[in-house]
Parts: sequence; C-alpha cells; structure tokens
Amino acid sequence: MKALVLERVGELSLRDIDLPQEMGPDDVRIRLHTVGVCGSDVHYYTHGRIGDFVLNEPMVLGHEAAGTIAAVGANVTHLKPGDRVCMEPGIPDPKSRASRLGLYNVDPAVTFWATPPVHGVLMPETVHPASFTYKLPDNVSFAEGAMVEPFAVGMQAATRARVTPGDTAVVTGCGTIGIMVALAALAGGCSRVLISDISETKLKLAESYDGITGVNLREQDLVETVDTATEGWGADIVFECSGAAAAVRDLFKVVRPGGTVVLVGLPPEPVPVDIAAACSRECRIETVFRYANVFDRALALIAAGKVDLKPLVSGTFSFDQSIAAFKRAAEARPEDVKLQIIVDGEVK
Amino acid sequence: MKALVLERVGELSLRDIDLPQEMGPDDVRIRLHTVGVCGSDVHYYTHGRIGDFVLNEPMVLGHEAAGTIAAVGANVTHLKPGDRVCMEPGIPDPKSRASRLGLYNVDPAVTFWATPPVHGVLMPETVHPASFTYKLPDNVSFAEGAMVEPFAVGMQAATRARVTPGDTAVVTGCGTIGIMVALAALAGGCSRVLISDISETKLKLAESYDGITGVNLREQDLVETVDTATEGWGADIVFECSGAAAAVRDLFKVVRPGGTVVLVGLPPEPVPVDIAAACSRECRIETVFRYANVFDRALALIAAGKVDLKPLVSGTFSFDQSIAAFKRAAEARPEDVKLQIIVDGEVK
Amino acid sequence: MKALVLERVGELSLRDIDLPQEMGPDDVRIRLHTVGVCGSDVHYYTHGRIGDFVLNEPMVLGHEAAGTIAAVGANVTHLKPGDRVCMEPGIPDPKSRASRLGLYNVDPAVTFWATPPVHGVLMPETVHPASFTYKLPDNVSFAEGAMVEPFAVGMQAATRARVTPGDTAVVTGCGTIGIMVALAALAGGCSRVLISDISETKLKLAESYDGITGVNLREQDLVETVDTATEGWGADIVFECSGAAAAVRDLFKVVRPGGTVVLVGLPPEPVPVDIAAACSRECRIETVFRYANVFDRALALIAAGKVDLKPLVSGTFSFDQSIAAFKRAAEARPEDVKLQIIVDGEVK
Amino acid sequence: MKALVLERVGELSLRDIDLPQEMGPDDVRIRLHTVGVCGSDVHYYTHGRIGDFVLNEPMVLGHEAAGTIAAVGANVTHLKPGDRVCMEPGIPDPKSRASRLGLYNVDPAVTFWATPPVHGVLMPETVHPASFTYKLPDNVSFAEGAMVEPFAVGMQAATRARVTPGDTAVVTGCGTIGIMVALAALAGGCSRVLISDISETKLKLAESYDGITGVNLREQDLVETVDTATEGWGADIVFECSGAAAAVRDLFKVVRPGGTVVLVGLPPEPVPVDIAAACSRECRIETVFRYANVFDRALALIAAGKVDLKPLVSGTFSFDQSIAAFKRAAEARPEDVKLQIIVDGEVK
Repeated sequence: MKALVLERVGELSLRDIDLPQEMGPDDVRIRLHTVGVCGSDVHYYTHGRIGDFVLNEPMVLGHEAAGTIAAVGANVTHLKPGDRVCMEPGIPDPKSRASRLGLYNVDPAVTFWATPPVHGVLMPETVHPASFTYKLPDNVSFAEGAMVEPFAVGMQAATRARVTPGDTAVVTGCGTIGIMVALAALAGGCSRVLISDISETKLKLAESYDGITGVNLREQDLVETVDTATEGWGADIVFECSGAAAAVRDLFKVVRPGGTVVLVGLPPEPVPVDIAAACSRECRIETVFRYANVFDRALALIAAGKVDLKPLVSGTFSFDQSIAAFKRAAEARPEDVKLQIIVDGEVK
Repeated sequence: MKALVLERVGELSLRDIDLPQEMGPDDVRIRLHTVGVCGSDVHYYTHGRIGDFVLNEPMVLGHEAAGTIAAVGANVTHLKPGDRVCMEPGIPDPKSRASRLGLYNVDPAVTFWATPPVHGVLMPETVHPASFTYKLPDNVSFAEGAMVEPFAVGMQAATRARVTPGDTAVVTGCGTIGIMVALAALAGGCSRVLISDISETKLKLAESYDGITGVNLREQDLVETVDTATEGWGADIVFECSGAAAAVRDLFKVVRPGGTVVLVGLPPEPVPVDIAAACSRECRIETVFRYANVFDRALALIAAGKVDLKPLVSGTFSFDQSIAAFKRAAEARPEDVKLQIIVDGEVK
Repeated sequence: MKALVLERVGELSLRDIDLPQEMGPDDVRIRLHTVGVCGSDVHYYTHGRIGDFVLNEPMVLGHEAAGTIAAVGANVTHLKPGDRVCMEPGIPDPKSRASRLGLYNVDPAVTFWATPPVHGVLMPETVHPASFTYKLPDNVSFAEGAMVEPFAVGMQAATRARVTPGDTAVVTGCGTIGIMVALAALAGGCSRVLISDISETKLKLAESYDGITGVNLREQDLVETVDTATEGWGADIVFECSGAAAAVRDLFKVVRPGGTVVLVGLPPEPVPVDIAAACSRECRIETVFRYANVFDRALALIAAGKVDLKPLVSGTFSFDQSIAAFKRAAEARPEDVKLQIIVDGEVK
Repeated sequence: MKALVLERVGELSLRDIDLPQEMGPDDVRIRLHTVGVCGSDVHYYTHGRIGDFVLNEPMVLGHEAAGTIAAVGANVTHLKPGDRVCMEPGIPDPKSRASRLGLYNVDPAVTFWATPPVHGVLMPETVHPASFTYKLPDNVSFAEGAMVEPFAVGMQAATRARVTPGDTAVVTGCGTIGIMVALAALAGGCSRVLISDISETKLKLAESYDGITGVNLREQDLVETVDTATEGWGADIVFECSGAAAAVRDLFKVVRPGGTVVLVGLPPEPVPVDIAAACSRECRIETVFRYANVFDRALALIAAGKVDLKPLVSGTFSFDQSIAAFKRAAEARPEDVKLQIIVDGEVK
C-alpha cells in the first residue's frame, strides 16, 4: 500500500509501506478520500519533533481525513459500506479514568494519528474504531469532512468558553486555528468577533465572514480598539490563538471584569503572565487540548449552514503531488489557510 | 397626559391621566415611540388578573417599549437626549439579596410595568432608571427595539439552557414566546430547532426562518419525529413553551440522556410530571422567570443580523387606534405574532 | 456455588447455582465478604418487578458489596490479590455515546447487578471489570465498603446539586437514601440540613449526626419551619427523597429564589408539579439516576472521617441467615437503616 | 474620635480625627469591637502603597471588623440596636454593570476600607450600608466575627473552585490566606488538603486541623508527594496562595488531567507560566479577587462548627496597644496567623 511517509526530518517519500490493518468487531475499514495538511504534519516534516514527541523512525503523515466506509465489524450498527465519513484521529482507552469522566482527550493513553510513533492516514485505506467515525450529512463534502478535525479545535474552544448568547469575543492570532475558533465562537452564540494579527492578508480573509472584524496590530492597538468597541467594559471572551508572548501579556487588559480567557495557542516556552491583573478582573481561564465529543456537533453546524468552511480550502493536490503539497505548506504563505490532498479521486 | 387605561375588565379608554413623573439623578425621561401589545396586557384586559396580580383600579397598559431620551439625571453618563432606546420594564431593589446575587429578576421587591398596581407606558412619556435603559444601535429600528422585551424571554431561556454549540433543540408551542425562544436558541448556538404546535399557520411562519422545522401535532407524533431526527438519541434541549399538560407529559421522552429541559410556559394549574422518567435520563430542568442581564446581548445579536425580529410584526396601529389594537389582539389570530402601537409618530 | 436466589415473588432459597464466571484481561475475581440488603432487592422479593424490570426467572440478589481480590486479569495494574475492595454494580458499554460523554450511568446498555435478568452477588465469588472495582483504604471496613453503593446515590445527588459552601439544605424523606443524601450534602459543603419525615424514630437517628435537624411533619409545617430557619429566604437546595406527591407539591415554597431542587425519590406514577411556582423562583431542578464517577470520592470522604456510615448498620446476618435478613428487611422497621449479610466470615 | 491613623510610611499614631459619619436610611451605625490586623494594613504601614493604591494623606487602618449595632436607618429591617455584627469592607455601586451581574467585587467603582483614600475602621464607630452588615449567630464571638473577612477570601476560592465532594486539594503557601483557603476547601467538600510551605512552624499549625497534611518544601518535592498521594493521577484542585514564581511553575505538574487551578496569591510582577503544560491537562484556571456573596455562608459554616477559626488568633491587643500590634505584625513571626485589636472592651 502506497503512503506518504516522513522518512526523517525534511525527507518525504511516497512509497509502499506494510502496515497491519486487522479489523475488530467494533472497527470499520475506510477508504481515504481527502486528507488535509496540518501545521503539526508540517512541523514534523521541518523539525522532526513537537515537544516530547520525536520522530525516530519513518511515519505516515496526515490526520485530517474523510473517506468512505469499505467494511464494518460485527458489532457496528450506525455505519455501513458506502457511507461517507470523517474520523476523529485520537483513540483513547475507553476504560481509563479520564475516559470515564468524559475527558477522553486528556487520557494519557490516547494514541493520535501522525504523532510518533503512530502512523497517520495519507494512504489508501485504514482501520478505525467505529465510535470515532462519523457519517457525513449528504450536503457535506469530503473537503468539508476533512476540515472537521481542525474545526473541532475551534468547537472545543467555544464549548469550554461557555458562550453566553450575544457575547463579544476577541481572537488573538488569525492563523488557521484562530479562524476556526472565530467561526465556532460565532456559531456558538457570540454576536461578533474581533480578530487580531499582523498579516493584512489573513485579516482580509477572516473579514470575508459576517461578524468578524480584523484588527491589524501594525496599525491599531488591541486594548484601545476593544475598549472603544465595548464602551470601556472589555470583551466577554478572549481566545488566545497566537501562542505569542506579546498577546498573552495583554489578555487581562482586553477581557471584561468577570470575563473568560481561553488559551488555545501553545507558546513553545513558559511566558510571563500578569496573575495580579487576571485576579483583579477575576477572570476564568480555560485551556484547550484537542477536543472531545465535538465532531457530531461540528457536522451539525456545517450541515445546517451555520459554518461554511469551504472558502478556507486554498489549494487541492492529487495524492501524487503530496510532497509538493507539503513543500507549499512549509512556505507558510499568508493566503493559505488549508491545503488538502485527494488520496482517492480526481482534483477538480 | 393621554394614556391607554384599562379601567376594569373588558373596558379600555384612551384618556388623560395624572401620573407623578419626577426624575432622580440616576433616571432618564423618555418619550415613548413604539409599544408592543403583550399577551399579558391582553389577559388583564380580558380577565382582570394574572395569578396573584389583580386589577383593582385603573392601570395604564404596555411594557414592550422603545422611545427617545428627552432628559437625563445628573449621574447619567451613558445616555443623552436624543438617544433612541428600549427599556427593561422590571425595576428591582438593587440592594436586595437577590440583586446582589445577580438574580434581580427574582427579587420579590421588583416592580414591573403594567402589572397591578404598577402603570405601564402606553402614554407619551415616562421616567425610568438609566441602568435599565438601553441605547439602540443605529441599525435597530424602534419596532425592533420594542420587540427586545419579548425576545429577552427567549434569550433568558437560551442562556439558562447553557447551549453547547451544535445542539439540537425542540421547542413545544409555536406562539410568540415559542418563536422567540427558537430564534434565541439558534442564535445562541443550536444547529437546528424542531418546533411543535397544532396551528399550521404558526408553524409555517416559524419555518420561514433557516434552521427551524415545524412539527404539526395533528399529523405527526413529536416523540417519534425527534427519535427519527436524532437517530434514537433524543434532543439535547427541550424548551417547553406551550404551558400545556400534554406537552409536559412527553418532555422526558423527547430529551436525550443527560439532556436539558427548560420550562418557559406557565400552566395555570399544577400538571402531572413523570419524575421517574426525568430521573431515568438524569435530565437537568431549568425554569425561566422573565430575564436578567440579557437586553444588551439581545441588542447585540439583533444589530449583528443574527436575529431578525422584523418579520414578526404582524400589525402596526396608531396611538388613536390603541383600543382597536387590543381588540384585534384579543382575537388571537394565528397569523398575529406581534401587534405594535406607535405612540409618537406616523404608522407607515 | 451456593447463592441467595430469588426463585419467584416471595420465594427465596439459598442453593447451588451454576454461573459462568470467566475472567477477561481487564477483569478481577472477587471473593465476596459483606453484602447489604437494598430496598430494591426487597422490592423484587415482595413484588417481582420494578417498573419495566420484571423477574421472569430465578435471579441471585444483592448489589451492595465488598470483598477481597482473588485474582486479576493480565491488564490490571491498580489491584492485586488480597486487596480489600468494593464494587460499582452497574457496567456500561465504555464505547457508547453516553459513556463517551462521561454519563455512563445513563447508558441504555448498562447492566446492573440484581436487576432482571442480571444476577446479583449474594454468593461467594464474582468476576467484575477492574475499572469498576475500588480498593478500600485501610481504615475502611468491609461493612463500610458495602455501604458505599447506597451512599453513592447521596454523593451523586450532592454532586449534581453543585453545593456552594455554606448552603442550607432541606431533605424531604428520612429513609436510607434521605440519610445518605443528608450526609453527602454536609460532607459536600452544606452548613446544615433540615430533614423531614413522619417517623420520629427515623428523625432521631438522623439527628444523631451533627448538622442535621429533624422536622416531624406530624407536628411541624415544613414550609413554615424553613421560612423561620432562613429568615424568609428559603433553602438553597432541596433534595426530594421521599417520592411522595405531598412533598413534591411544596418543593417550590421551600426553596429560595434562584435555588436548586434535586429529585432523588421516584414516585411510582406522575405527580402534580406547580411549574408556575417553580418558574416564579427560577429554580434549577436536577435529577439523579444512580451515580457515575463517585465511588472513589465517597471512599475518600469515608477514609477522611468526614462521613461516618457505621452507625447506620442496624443488623448483621450470616450468609446462612440470608433469608431471615430479607424477611426482616421486608418488615421495614423504622429503626432499620441498613441490614447486611456476611457472605464469607463470622458475624461479630 | 480617636483612631489608629497611618500618617505616612512607617508612622502610625493613635489620635483624634474628624470624619463625617452621616447615616442614610439604608445604613447602620456600628460601635467597633474587634478589628484584625491584615497583611495589607501592614503593607501600607511598611511600604505606603499596594500596586496602584498609594497613601497620599493620613488614613485610618483596619478592615477586618466586628462590632455592635448602635443605630439603624429608616429602611433597615434585618438589624436592630444591640445586634452583634461583622461587616463586609467593600462597598460597590449597586447599580453598576458588574453589580447587576452579581460580580460586585469587580465593580470598578467599589470603595474598600483602608485602601487609599478610603479610611478603615480602627476607631470607635462607623457608618456602613446595612446590606453589607451581617448579624453574628449567638455562638460566634467578636473575635471570630472579625475573622470572617480573611476567611471570606478562602470561601471565595473554594466557591470558584466548584469543589466536587471528595476532591483532593493542594494549597501552595501556608500563610494566613493559605490556611483560610485550606479550611474553606475542607468545609466546602474536599476530603483532604495537602499544604506546602518552607516554614515548619506554619505547617505544624495547619496540621493541627483534621484533614490537612503539611508538605515541607525543604524536605519534600511537591510534585512527587502529590503523585504518590494520588497514585499518579494528580490533585483535583490546586489553590496557589503563595504568590511565588516557583509555586506557579509547577502548578500543572500537580493538578490532574481536567483539574482546576485557583490563583489566590498575587505575585508582584508577571511570572512565567507554562501554558502548553496547562493545555496538555486541559485545566480550568480560576482567579480570585476578594469575595462576593460569601459572608453569610462563612458565618453559617462557623456557627455550625464546620470551621473553627479560634485557634488562628495568635495575639490580642487593646486599642491603646494598637501601634505595638502593628509592630509585632510587621515582624511577620511564623507563628502569628492573626493578631487582633479590641477597640471597645477588655483583652482577656
């Protein structure tokens, strides 16, 4: 079976690899159709590691995936061959302490596609637990299905924020995740989102959505802008999606008294936080680690037309062009929100 | 000053009345523009009482109001003469135990417009606390401003429901409040709403909004319909807005395990509830009493275009036609969602 | 293997029964030591059914159990032979939708000891999932261990109530579950509990605990008593543990504005509820179905000495006397809170 | 009227001062009995400022106070002359946006005793809003009443933590506030508290309470100790009460997956926080600013005997010895948890 394999830092090959793919009674076999290129895939390609996860041997990349059911295990009732699906790439131990609490995303035993030493799915076929495989509604395309995974991070952020209907939100950082968070916040009940970045290209793209206003940090001060927009009260929720120390520094000047800060971006090192300022506004601070129990709700919002992810696909590549797709992704062009690879089918 | 006065059950007059309207330093004086006719106004007109509140002497009707600031008290900084505003009709004791907890709507000391013996505002001018007076955004009309009060009940319901983004909601009862709740639920994060009633006219009106599907109880069984729509799982949230015993009976067959029921409709008498069924799904049940802290957020959603109340105004009357407006409202035509009276200005 | 078998309504026998007890890699084998007699066991004995669960063939009784690990499966790491343990009697499907949400108690697929057609554990040995088996701290006896199950219902009620430290609680119904709820409420942060019943014997027993005050409904009016005790404000939390319509009728006169009602008792039929009264105080109503994720926390409170269940064991029987124990339990003496059977060992 | 006046940094005098003390209809006049010496009082004495609050002119110190009602305003019904009371020292604007949300502690308009330029109450008499004045239960002494204020910070921390009954908590920092937090956490439902510090004297004092275990950081590693105590899972809640960067650094190694960190201590400068570590466990982080709506619940727990503050009074001084009391407090002896001054009465 041919797969996109990260051989070592900086070296990709599209080659045959032999992987065990036995299917248990609670599993399904899936023919992959569309797989998105994620920043973490690219980071393994360019750096060979993320935190404690180190690439020590060749690994198949790809974890944002949609496809078609080829076969189902004996116990599976909610899916059948031919169903179009997307998949949650992290598989926890369902009997673990965290899973029993409903926190399966923080189960220390979770295995996650394309996180060493676990292979991803840039290949024709995979086997996956049926309970982490979701049927796509008829009006949701494979391209959208493969976007559910990154959008799920936004859904997790909006869920943990516990939006009160009509809230004003600020998102710091207008990368892929920042936009996903902004869209989930709006779909989840916010009346408006102010999103900040230094790239006018990225801000313009975000502003093409109703309800999103860009704040170009090269020209505007975020604290002042929010102060004016909220008549001195502050934002109800601030989603930090940049991972930048400068953004973290001002969080508690932007949020209102009793407001909420949601930390999504991951600074590579500890960053200074003004705890006294956080306390003086008695903020609640939530953190986000991947997602749990949001794929079905993400699909419901997409199918309902409340979230439109289609404009975010900025490039589509055939499987044969996979390596080119990664090279393009490594360029980090500001206009590229999401690149996707069609594993099985034609690029239109 | 001429006002619409409910003299006694069934008898309205448009006549002069002398009311004290002294303005304190924290108050504003408002020239009324548009006032909606609420079911409770009509009920006092037709029955002379609601529960323990009994009409014992003539009372001015009307509590869904928008107007223009005529003057402001010495301490008022967020409003100025000429500002277009809407008003929250309940005034609590800000020092009460309930108010200190943020629950000012359940303060036993609250006084509420057009609830005996407190006068309403179907008259040219009133004085009101500035802190319960809200500036209308430029793109929000007086008609919409006067709809904020009934919509606020929907906002309170959606807020107490604590919607998780993407939830499926059911609303039982497609009257004015049922529609308000459905719109607030969608704006507050639900992906879709199924609304049930026996009036096809009302359901058709509700279905003109994206995301709302009507369930005509003369033709469809609600439990079965929800079961099919949710693949046997049940609705995440059920908003009971009918006050009908038959709707209450089936609530816990419609909601999913661990789901939420929000009681908005007020049955006039105690109704049978299947507590064992509620427990077997371990539901949370929330109740709603008017609203607190939602007017600003309602306005934010309307201004953002996430909620469109304009199609719900089914008739507009001049002040001189006020009595005719109430007679029409008393007919309870299924196509009438909201009738409004223009106190000051022309009916277009 | 000899077991206490309910042959049919009203007929118990202590006789050999052949049950499959294969142990998987995630299971443990347990030698039972102490098993409590629960009201539901007695109800199957006297009536042959509870709701939809009907005794159609002989069934071993008993689900409040403690014992000693005899053997562990290959994957089990947190337990070893010789460990003293208690067990959670409900086994969900860990891959179900409810389980993934952390709501495994409302998983429709759950199987529960001594609930037809699933056998209980009044027998020498059983096999159980290790993840639902809890090590007893050294200072917790088998008798206390076998009380964790009924106490877990109290824990679930106190957890769902979301006690704010210092709350005043009312418990209606001073049976075994009412007392368990009162103790959990106190351990969980309430400052005091008023508990109501018509049995002076039961109330006296409850009052032997610090912080619990009995209200004898033959002599005192509950609404008035709570009104006086809270200076007219009402109780922060009311736990309904009687299942009696009369108690349900007054719930919303007892709870404070914005307070919480927790429904624990199960009326056999729908009972009238004053929804308008519930709404006028804007109460939150929580319901309880068994428990999830509380056994470890129950044990922590018992081991810490914050909850003392020992005084509640009102009678201990040897395994040979099991049938006598059930006959005594069926008498429902007011002084009997909990009867226990020693399956393996001497009665001291 | 003689008062303890902080003239300037380092200079206290017990001298006459003329303060306006007019009483409005919602106020009460209180004769002070006992006033505690708070770390913030001492800090103004030794440094002349805390953050943005700077001593620019003479100010009366003291804000932890209990006394006796001398007179009540016309609207006051819940208090009468002779009632023993304690007082909440912060007075918000009850009509402010924060107050209406129930967040009066973060109202920017709040005035707070002994915070420049507002005078404190180390003097014979003061006038205060009745709604922030609390009747002491008969079994609560003036000394305990004057401890309610610092204990209220612990109550706020335990409330915002949303303790689940049986939780394991860690408190970092065993100063006065650390102990208050530990006691509130235990009363609020925790099964046990591990408290860390470098002072054996302080830890020994804390360990005199049931349920508290000291961790001497000179001898033990906190991360390892918690790991062992929780079998590798981590603490459910970590209360940071030291304000020390070293404690902040390890917070997310001590808390369990999905656990809660409550920030109480105020580091004078921004400190490094490992946001990626916080996210990897998806912690919720709460912050605390003073308190709101906890005085009544604090008194309920003290009256019920669930919290015993009496052992924490380490020294009592007469009003004439006030300056000596402050000099002793400035020594910061490890055995001194709380020093108090008897304004009106004898020191026993």
